[in-house]
Amino acid sequence: MATAEVRKGLLLKADPIAAAFRDEVKASLPKCTRPPKLIGILATSAAPSKNYAEFTRRQCEELGVEFVLKTVGAAASPDLGEGEGVEEAILEANEDPSIHGIMVYFPIFGAQQDHYLQQVVSPLKDVEGLHFKFHYNLYHNIRFIEPKSLLSSVSQPTPAPETQSGEPPEGFVKSIIPCTPLAIVKCLEYIGVYNTILPYGDRAYGKTITVINRSEVVGRPLAALLANDGARVISVDIDSIQEYTKRPRVVSDSATAQRYHPRHVVHPCNLTLQDALAISDVVVSAVPSASYKVKTEWLKDGCICLNVAADKNFEKDVRDKASIYIPAVGKVTIFMLLRNL
Amino acid sequence: MATAEVRKGLLLKADPIAAAFRDEVKASLPKCTRPPKLIGILATSAAPSKNYAEFTRRQCEELGVEFVLKTVGAAASPDLGEGEGVEEAILEANEDPSIHGIMVYFPIFGAQQDHYLQQVVSPLKDVEGLHFKFHYNLYHNIRFIEPKSLLSSVSQPTPAPETQSGEPPEGFVKSIIPCTPLAIVKCLEYIGVYNTILPYGDRAYGKTITVINRSEVVGRPLAALLANDGARVISVDIDSIQEYTKRPRVVSDSATAQRYHPRHVVHPCNLTLQDALAISDVVVSAVPSASYKVKTEWLKDGCICLNVAADKNFEKDVRDKASIYIPAVGKVTIFMLLRNL
Repeated sequence: MATAEVRKGLLLKADPIAAAFRDEVKASLPKCTRPPKLIGILATSAAPSKNYAEFTRRQCEELGVEFVLKTVGAAASPDLGEGEGVEEAILEANEDPSIHGIMVYFPIFGAQQDHYLQQVVSPLKDVEGLHFKFHYNLYHNIRFIEPKSLLSSVSQPTPAPETQSGEPPEGFVKSIIPCTPLAIVKCLEYIGVYNTILPYGDRAYGKTITVINRSEVVGRPLAALLANDGARVISVDIDSIQEYTKRPRVVSDSATAQRYHPRHVVHPCNLTLQDALAISDVVVSAVPSASYKVKTEWLKDGCICLNVAADKNFEKDVRDKASIYIPAVGKVTIFMLLRNL
Repeated sequence: MATAEVRKGLLLKADPIAAAFRDEVKASLPKCTRPPKLIGILATSAAPSKNYAEFTRRQCEELGVEFVLKTVGAAASPDLGEGEGVEEAILEANEDPSIHGIMVYFPIFGAQQDHYLQQVVSPLKDVEGLHFKFHYNLYHNIRFIEPKSLLSSVSQPTPAPETQSGEPPEGFVKSIIPCTPLAIVKCLEYIGVYNTILPYGDRAYGKTITVINRSEVVGRPLAALLANDGARVISVDIDSIQEYTKRPRVVSDSATAQRYHPRHVVHPCNLTLQDALAISDVVVSAVPSASYKVKTEWLKDGCICLNVAADKNFEKDVRDKASIYIPAVGKVTIFMLLRNL
């Protein structure tokens, strides 16, 4: 009797995915009449923010994008407070017509006050897609917008005519998608979770995806994005489990799974995390805790695992079960941002 | 030798203050061509939210304001999830021209997602003042706005001409101030902390006020509001102490305390909580914890204490030191909301 060979799933670093997007951004630049100018606003003495600012600078230089780093508060002088002057710096960049994109290095004051600052950045220059309007469009599956709709605080965007290609109709542009969720979707496209044979807007149909974390920065927009693209998403947070799907839950004669809501609907869900993992083709974890681990034994054999947290949310032996494991997506995120620019 | 009499500070319930504002709202109603209509959106099964909705209804009925309670999600049926359908209900109320004001009973999903919902409410109907635009105006000490400025997501409001009376110049209206901070300011006006002899916009000049908690819902807008009104504010949060003031910190020949910034500036602060309390004329505490207590022994003799938290943040013997103690402001808050309507 031959012994079965011990194999491990594929470990996929983000570099080749990032490289594909770098090439895409690079190729699009000669079309610009003048090089785009990005301002980075660094307001704290935190080392990770400083490193990320340096990383942004290097990537911009390599691509020929003009990058200016503006330091304020504790980043500018040890005599100044953490975050001091950051709002003024954002308002100045909003008004400066030579600046096309604004990036602010968070965290600064904590979730609530940082959220306030994200609304201060003009949506016309918000390359990170953190402004409320972009979240609203994402949750409502509004993919294409007229640029002028960004200027209104109340009116709903005019619906765009239908499109099969994924390219915006005339007079419309793509709505910006928050960087990190977009980077995750791009990774899933790259590794074939999105099926390009299926029509645009429904390419994740048939996939069950568990997303662990439901923050407004990563987990909830990601769950909505995947469900709007056709997936059945189990959204797991510390105190509840929900299902995001645009398909009818009970398929009757008049409502089949092929006829679906224009955007995802959120349902309460009775599954446990263990139940959810047992049926998930893809597991995305973004829990900001070094001690949190997804149990390898609960994973479905051959599933795909993505770690989005700074800490490792999967156990060392994850590739005993996972067919593909992506340990980090940060390198892809930066190109989403430059693409938005 | 005569023994000193044992006296306690004044215990001031919010009722007489609330009554004053009820009368003000009642007096203004006959000026309206038709009674204003307020919709309350209740989306959870939480008892405090349900009670508050009932309280809103009673107050509206008494005043002759039309109140409609819309229940969705778990508030409408035990088969539905907590918060299910709340965003749709808000969007519907935004579009309904017969509705003048919208009130949503929070908390629903937790701080982050609730913050998203607060931006979904049209700023033209946001009687609670929770929309980003009102926070922006408050932080920037923009008191009067042209109503059309609420429609824009980017442009800064046109500055209003100066006024001494506190009444808006022609073509301008008062910017809505978030309900709870406004209710606290109204209590401070009522008990004479605001000095009406001083010019409008600087009536808290000379007062040192400690505000414990720096959330975006209560603590930070309150600190900004008080500092914009001339007070020296020590803002205390779990991990830092800051000073909010519009006055120059170092008074030189060219900059006296009478010449001040158009809005408050935030400075790092080396005081401890004990230092801050020792010099504070007013102490406002809004810590959402039953175990948190402000030490009576640290208070300045004769100070004024306001408890804004649902739990009691002051010790039982607070009136041994405080000249006035207000244990709750909830009843005032509801009239701020009806006033905004």
